[in-house]
Amino acid sequence: MTPSTPRQIAERAKEASHVLADADPAVLAATLETLARLLEGSGGDVLEANRADVAAARQAGLPDAKVRRLELDPAAVGRLAASVRRVALLPSPQGEVTQDRVVAESGLRVRKVRMPLGVIAMIYEARPGVTVDAFSLCLRSGNASILKGGREAVRSNRALFSLIGRALVDHGLPPASATLVESTDRDQIAELLACEGLIDLAIPRGGPELVSFVRRHARVPVLAHDRGVCHVFVHEAADLDMAERVCVSAKTSAPATCNAAECVLVDAAIAERFLPRLCGAMAARGVEVRGDEATQRICPGVTPASASDFGAEFLSLVVAVRVVNGLDGAVDHIRRHGSSHTEAILTEDAMVQEAFAKRVHASCVVINASTRNNDGGALGLGAEIGISTSRLHAYGPMGLAELTTQRFIVSGRGQTR
Amino acid sequence: MTPSTPRQIAERAKEASHVLADADPAVLAATLETLARLLEGSGGDVLEANRADVAAARQAGLPDAKVRRLELDPAAVGRLAASVRRVALLPSPQGEVTQDRVVAESGLRVRKVRMPLGVIAMIYEARPGVTVDAFSLCLRSGNASILKGGREAVRSNRALFSLIGRALVDHGLPPASATLVESTDRDQIAELLACEGLIDLAIPRGGPELVSFVRRHARVPVLAHDRGVCHVFVHEAADLDMAERVCVSAKTSAPATCNAAECVLVDAAIAERFLPRLCGAMAARGVEVRGDEATQRICPGVTPASASDFGAEFLSLVVAVRVVNGLDGAVDHIRRHGSSHTEAILTEDAMVQEAFAKRVHASCVVINASTRNNDGGALGLGAEIGISTSRLHAYGPMGLAELTTQRFIVSGRGQTR
Repeated sequence: MTPSTPRQIAERAKEASHVLADADPAVLAATLETLARLLEGSGGDVLEANRADVAAARQAGLPDAKVRRLELDPAAVGRLAASVRRVALLPSPQGEVTQDRVVAESGLRVRKVRMPLGVIAMIYEARPGVTVDAFSLCLRSGNASILKGGREAVRSNRALFSLIGRALVDHGLPPASATLVESTDRDQIAELLACEGLIDLAIPRGGPELVSFVRRHARVPVLAHDRGVCHVFVHEAADLDMAERVCVSAKTSAPATCNAAECVLVDAAIAERFLPRLCGAMAARGVEVRGDEATQRICPGVTPASASDFGAEFLSLVVAVRVVNGLDGAVDHIRRHGSSHTEAILTEDAMVQEAFAKRVHASCVVINASTRNNDGGALGLGAEIGISTSRLHAYGPMGLAELTTQRFIVSGRGQTR
Repeated sequence: MTPSTPRQIAERAKEASHVLADADPAVLAATLETLARLLEGSGGDVLEANRADVAAARQAGLPDAKVRRLELDPAAVGRLAASVRRVALLPSPQGEVTQDRVVAESGLRVRKVRMPLGVIAMIYEARPGVTVDAFSLCLRSGNASILKGGREAVRSNRALFSLIGRALVDHGLPPASATLVESTDRDQIAELLACEGLIDLAIPRGGPELVSFVRRHARVPVLAHDRGVCHVFVHEAADLDMAERVCVSAKTSAPATCNAAECVLVDAAIAERFLPRLCGAMAARGVEVRGDEATQRICPGVTPASASDFGAEFLSLVVAVRVVNGLDGAVDHIRRHGSSHTEAILTEDAMVQEAFAKRVHASCVVINASTRNNDGGALGLGAEIGISTSRLHAYGPMGLAELTTQRFIVSGRGQTR
């Protein structure tokens, strides 16, 4: 990549976005198919670049968890190719007619039709897979992308991006359909995020520091994926076998993810019966339970919870447990401590299910299933670029449709006003 | 209103928004019905307050056009009441199920359901009617509103807002469901716009200076209604009678509005035939035509256009006219000079209609009708709170549905992941 100013990068991306918006969706899909084949064929170069990144990161003392996120192996490259191919096979949202009616008063035919947002800037950490995933979702939905990954992944990203560039050229698409930003200068990133009218959306994906940096500097719209402080409420009418299974799995199946459960709320009416089972099952899976006073009384072995344990995103094998008074108590707690991400209830009572769904305003309310189901795959979006916890534009997992806008196409027979 | 800090105002509005989100939509409609009756009954107080505002504004030397926007008369108050009643009768978007399906892979039932955005801050100029319109659209869609109008309308807004307060109390809704901000301190407004997590959306409605102030200071999402540089392209296959009528009406029926036409693009193939008619009809309606060289050649009487006349928002009886080479020329011009608001084409050729709609990416493309049809009423939205020219969340007129978000409600039978 020739070094360019952030504004030049954004201008060239905008130009390319016009071409992508007019392109045949089949060409966009074929480009992704080519990228999948290139990934499968050129694993060697990518892996070599990645080994250099990993060695440098180890030498620089990057924490183990971060090194693991940075690392690629042949299987991971294979999974990336498969996921690009999956996105290529998803139906294109471009041109989808979401409304078509004739307005009686005006006699106008009014259609709402999907079109790409335009240029999407993705700001993420040292996870090279995101380079490929974000590019493929942006391209499938007809958007140009500007990709800025973490500095520790620079060699891996460059190797992956060269495959992206080849796929674009092979299918006659403008090179600026995707741009890899290698600068690590924060002022330059801030300048990029200020390119109003050129960049249509910025998506930060990473820790709170990254999200807050983007929010602070962006003059363009931002969809942020924030903390996931997810609760599971076990109501008195719950199937307790199901409840035990769901709570343990929601905590332990992938504790570092944003949709893992951080806190279990237990209805006082069943606390005596359910808490010993829950605490026992959690302990058996190596989970530290931090309980409120009522929980401590019923399960004397648990760690006493401090006030800050409620509302905490542990991202590890720690769970807060609290006894609440029925639905009202659970809703109160969640309104105070939830982060609008995912909130689950276990109950067989249909009225309580509906009331919980109505009163808890999270992006995803889950009834009788694990919080970990809040995921583009499980919810049938095909793929996701992130989970939005703010209400504008998209709330919850964002798939291809969320990377488009809907505009009006109005047809008349000479109507004036 | 007791003086409060911006943060306290936002916190109380957030509390009220929870009550509104859970409220029966029929109660919200009844509250608006009461407000309509109060408006009809208490015209005297409102008009008296408005007379004081108008007198003060005249004394302070406010331009005539602004004084006219500030002024209310009995008919205007009657129209406000009627518009509140119309909004009360619109179907509530709250709880609308926009998707309901079972995902094969997971067996989960996934619904998308509309809910209010939460708290909407409306920042506008000295137009007292907006106080009532914005409140009624926010309340009908279940949102709390924070209303900040122009300082010149302070007495009128206070009088109108006292009716809003009475209607809320009458129906047992929290007073903080709507807040009138009387402070004229820009630092306080900036502080309000920084209340992340409390205010869900800020809508500036007014001139470029107001919009840019809000964009600069907002840490909350903003939907701005920006300039309308709207074009009408008369294609060679246009019905020239219809074209003449539409062009003249789009320019003259309300020249100061954002959806008025500012520039007519004439296909070179029909320029000799159409331009004399167009220029004659415009002149007959008192419109100054500023033409490019080709137009000057065909219609020697027109004012020569300067470069800055293309892309200008005249908002008055001035129109720029340019001869372009067919569809490509028109699309090029609009991409360079349009403001993504409204772009119209006149042609009987269906292929050209579709190509224009596909290649011009404005929020509203109008085929064979006036640009002035880009309006919530004409497009069947019932009412509008503004027209968004940025692509995120809403693109084009925003009605009740655009004041909601869609979230996921997921039901399972114990699914884990």
